[in-house]
Amino acid sequence: MPTWVDGCTAESLPVSDRGLAYGDGLFETIGIRHAKPRLLQRHLARLGTGCARLGIPFDEALIQRELLAFAAEVGEGVAKLILTRGDGPRGYAAPQYARPRRILQSGPAPTYPGAHAEQGVRLFPCTTRLAEQPLLAGLKHLNRLEQVLARGEWQDSTYAEGLLRDTSGRVIEGVFSNLLLVKDGQLLSAELSRCGVAGVMRAELLAWAEQAGIPLRVRDLEYAELLEADEVLLCNSQYGVWPVRALHTRDWPVGPLTRKLQAIARDLLDC
Amino acid sequence: MPTWVDGCTAESLPVSDRGLAYGDGLFETIGIRHAKPRLLQRHLARLGTGCARLGIPFDEALIQRELLAFAAEVGEGVAKLILTRGDGPRGYAAPQYARPRRILQSGPAPTYPGAHAEQGVRLFPCTTRLAEQPLLAGLKHLNRLEQVLARGEWQDSTYAEGLLRDTSGRVIEGVFSNLLLVKDGQLLSAELSRCGVAGVMRAELLAWAEQAGIPLRVRDLEYAELLEADEVLLCNSQYGVWPVRALHTRDWPVGPLTRKLQAIARDLLDC
Repeated sequence: MPTWVDGCTAESLPVSDRGLAYGDGLFETIGIRHAKPRLLQRHLARLGTGCARLGIPFDEALIQRELLAFAAEVGEGVAKLILTRGDGPRGYAAPQYARPRRILQSGPAPTYPGAHAEQGVRLFPCTTRLAEQPLLAGLKHLNRLEQVLARGEWQDSTYAEGLLRDTSGRVIEGVFSNLLLVKDGQLLSAELSRCGVAGVMRAELLAWAEQAGIPLRVRDLEYAELLEADEVLLCNSQYGVWPVRALHTRDWPVGPLTRKLQAIARDLLDC
Repeated sequence: MPTWVDGCTAESLPVSDRGLAYGDGLFETIGIRHAKPRLLQRHLARLGTGCARLGIPFDEALIQRELLAFAAEVGEGVAKLILTRGDGPRGYAAPQYARPRRILQSGPAPTYPGAHAEQGVRLFPCTTRLAEQPLLAGLKHLNRLEQVLARGEWQDSTYAEGLLRDTSGRVIEGVFSNLLLVKDGQLLSAELSRCGVAGVMRAELLAWAEQAGIPLRVRDLEYAELLEADEVLLCNSQYGVWPVRALHTRDWPVGPLTRKLQAIARDLLDC
């Protein structure tokens, strides 16, 4: 499977890259199907937002061209794009004229047990809490130690994902997924203005729900609301939708809106 | 100036390194004088603490040996050691048997205007606030986007450093320094259990003050206490101590305890 750095085949990058030094960059994990990147416009839009907020120059045309060429070479699988601010001298101050570095890695599409999608998953209750940092909230940046620590909390493979709450106890997301609730026919998604990653599949599902006339609210979610929800589901751009079946002693059925959203996600990922 | 990766001369590292992917690692910036690393035991102790908290294997003897050999080659200047969790497959889960990667970069000793130490510096009041994350507080880890954003707030070189407060408004530190206050003869340092970096020079100065019988408290510091302090100073392991002369419209004199601490720091860095 190919690896490119700045458009050329390469397996390494300079030690002076600010992505390494400070996590000064962003990433996207993009499915490749039939030699095409899936949900490309959503991924580019999020990357562009992240670049604007971090002040990293964003050459969208170049990145799009490169992703299309990379996908053509990969064929089937997954591409991970890391965009860093590029090289810099010692010190936090960003160079006045940053030359962002593009790193493209590829791999086979992740495989998950079919039961995750069919019967639903158990959520591990992570004790790692997400810090509240509005300046970075929503972005898929390279400062991911919280996720590393949270993912390190469980080895038991009967947990497919972990639940992340913020330091105030609110329900935010999974370690590598977003979380949605259904209560009395309303779809609820956590506000991601203090922490969390605004996922590409979440954006797709919320856009679909809005268009389909499903009552929808994006707001702070208390833990009690999760426990009282009628349906709970996880989503991301690789696996689509997994129903959540259990957390601690709480059990949920796999509900009709979850199945509908799962079908929507499947359509999006198949096309 | 030399660059080593895992003990060998190299200018690059594999794109699969988790330091790049997630900022999954730690760093130390170590002065080199007369071919020896300065404050080596303090730097190693902090790195060891960081490794223990992040679950990264720490081969202290190997790292010490390498730092000594590197310092001998560098002669005079500064060494930056990055220790990452090493390579890993896609996904946040750390490999069961991580092989940490050691990256050593060198450069000339940073040069600052003599006036910073003699007359003191102006502090830029950063609006970037530090998020409160007890799991990472105190560590010099590679997730440093907050510092990048904060340092990007000012270009005016009449500000030598920026003041960082936490999201609750407490006074924490500088962007690349720790901050100490003097009030009624008492030395005050911010509690770093929710955010901040526990600096090597801070540790040295606090240890000296304790031994010298200077009244000392490490606790939460409100912003009003900074404004009402008799003396304010910054410290780090490269420049030692800078008096803080101004913040907004507040002016401070360069006080006697600041000068004493400055002399202590100078001794530590000269030896």
